[in-house]
Amino acid sequence: MSDPTERFEASGDADRLYHVDGDLVPAAEATVSVEDRGFAYGDAAFETMRAYGGDLFRWDAHADRLADTCETLALDHGIDDAELKRRVDETLAANDLADAYVKLSISRGVQPGTLDPNPEVDPTVVVIAKPLARGGVGSDPVHDGPAALQTTKTRKVADRAIPAAAKTHNYLNGILARLEIRVTGADEALLLDPDGHVAEGATSNLFFVDGTALKTPSLDGPILPGVTRATVIDLAESEGIPVEEGTYAPDAVREADEVFLTNSTWEVRPVATVDGIAVDGDGEGVAGPLTTLLSRLFDRRIEEAGYDGERL
Amino acid sequence: MSDPTERFEASGDADRLYHVDGDLVPAAEATVSVEDRGFAYGDAAFETMRAYGGDLFRWDAHADRLADTCETLALDHGIDDAELKRRVDETLAANDLADAYVKLSISRGVQPGTLDPNPEVDPTVVVIAKPLARGGVGSDPVHDGPAALQTTKTRKVADRAIPAAAKTHNYLNGILARLEIRVTGADEALLLDPDGHVAEGATSNLFFVDGTALKTPSLDGPILPGVTRATVIDLAESEGIPVEEGTYAPDAVREADEVFLTNSTWEVRPVATVDGIAVDGDGEGVAGPLTTLLSRLFDRRIEEAGYDGERL
Repeated sequence: MSDPTERFEASGDADRLYHVDGDLVPAAEATVSVEDRGFAYGDAAFETMRAYGGDLFRWDAHADRLADTCETLALDHGIDDAELKRRVDETLAANDLADAYVKLSISRGVQPGTLDPNPEVDPTVVVIAKPLARGGVGSDPVHDGPAALQTTKTRKVADRAIPAAAKTHNYLNGILARLEIRVTGADEALLLDPDGHVAEGATSNLFFVDGTALKTPSLDGPILPGVTRATVIDLAESEGIPVEEGTYAPDAVREADEVFLTNSTWEVRPVATVDGIAVDGDGEGVAGPLTTLLSRLFDRRIEEAGYDGERL
Repeated sequence: MSDPTERFEASGDADRLYHVDGDLVPAAEATVSVEDRGFAYGDAAFETMRAYGGDLFRWDAHADRLADTCETLALDHGIDDAELKRRVDETLAANDLADAYVKLSISRGVQPGTLDPNPEVDPTVVVIAKPLARGGVGSDPVHDGPAALQTTKTRKVADRAIPAAAKTHNYLNGILARLEIRVTGADEALLLDPDGHVAEGATSNLFFVDGTALKTPSLDGPILPGVTRATVIDLAESEGIPVEEGTYAPDAVREADEVFLTNSTWEVRPVATVDGIAVDGDGEGVAGPLTTLLSRLFDRRIEEAGYDGERL
């Protein structure tokens, strides 16, 4: 039960509406062809986002990254950002969702032939939205408490095989890492890059605190440029906290004073143990001072951005 | 137009029936949920096969490899090989297909939560079948003539990221390689392993002839254990042709006397050029003597196995 989004199941999918190819359809009828390249090859780009108070958090950053992924895939879908956002907003409204998890996917659709992509794309655009308790000041965290992080034998795919900056439906690397840690009781996998340096979690970026500096693997490695990652770096820098983006051995994480993970769903998630070793030795999984500060600053950023839940 | 399966389009998909989750359905209604893990993550195993005269060629080998892939993915679908074959046979019969391309996919289906796979699997099983002119003695080849092969900057995914022996719906590595060669006019990408040795094509295994020996990259590298690859090795050995499975630099292929590719669709496909350089300098793309011999032996193997087209 390590995954907070498993809570979705309790909330009744039956009446939910998803957006498929321009239309709102009941979730049970939201389908794609078995010949859709998203199904056949994972040939699709996606973004996972949060809505707070009915508004997407940092839509522009997600839209930019989605465009970058599509450029990497040479997937020229021809739909502008405003129209994509309109479909997301329509999905949120149709489901009466203010605080939500949102997944927007664009696949290359059905094409003649087999593997070779055709430049003429009739894309498949899918929006899935589900209720997810909002973060923000005074809220409960949207994860199951501090994470147990476990480094894996499964290594990150190298950038020269598939660029990690592209957020695609090819997600088996992360799935294999999660399968590997299943027996350990850990709830997030920490993957190393081909050279053995720490890269990122299966679904999260990694941060750790060493002395007074905040450290995170550099985007020079096979790292997803996380939107929450960028927000946290920005928050830290605006507080005068030194931020170092570098190349780190697993031991640097195991010996860190504080460790936390970020993604759009978890926001800032403290790490209690790394490879079974308690972070900073307290063994209580209590977030350290810098993690706590950044988590609060993140909450405030949500508030300041006007995501005040008034639409509820 | 490098892909022979593009010919499928001329043959009228409208009346075709596909097999989805135990039922035959019109191709236009053959769909999977947008939440199917096959679509969301490419979390699925597949096999591409040929039927000759109504019978699947080397079903047992494909079934074994499919089982291996599912084991790698910890995808315990609970459907035995006989039932899978029954669904394929039913699909062929329903479409009156004797000589066909067949794709059998098993995805992990829809599961609660997000990335973590649940051990309880309600799999999605899909069979797609399309007419494809048969190979065999005296037939036309099922590819567009000798291939132009181009090595790519896109490298194979390392085994420790995703094992290459697993045939999965995570196919972006090959798609990125094919995109890369689009501008060159070549029709198959030759990917190198992380150390720069030749691995395989985007959808094919590589063979080349140096002197009198047949050489092919060893399965110690990130190589799919192709069913046609194994058949060709068996045929060569039964003829007393020395076969070497090893580790080779790209130059070994560029300087080879003969080069050919194998997969279930192409069978044995000669290579005319490697990185723009004519194989053996004739520039005519005429298959060399060993390639021709092995292609004929492959045709005969199909005949001997009783795939005599009588069901037509």
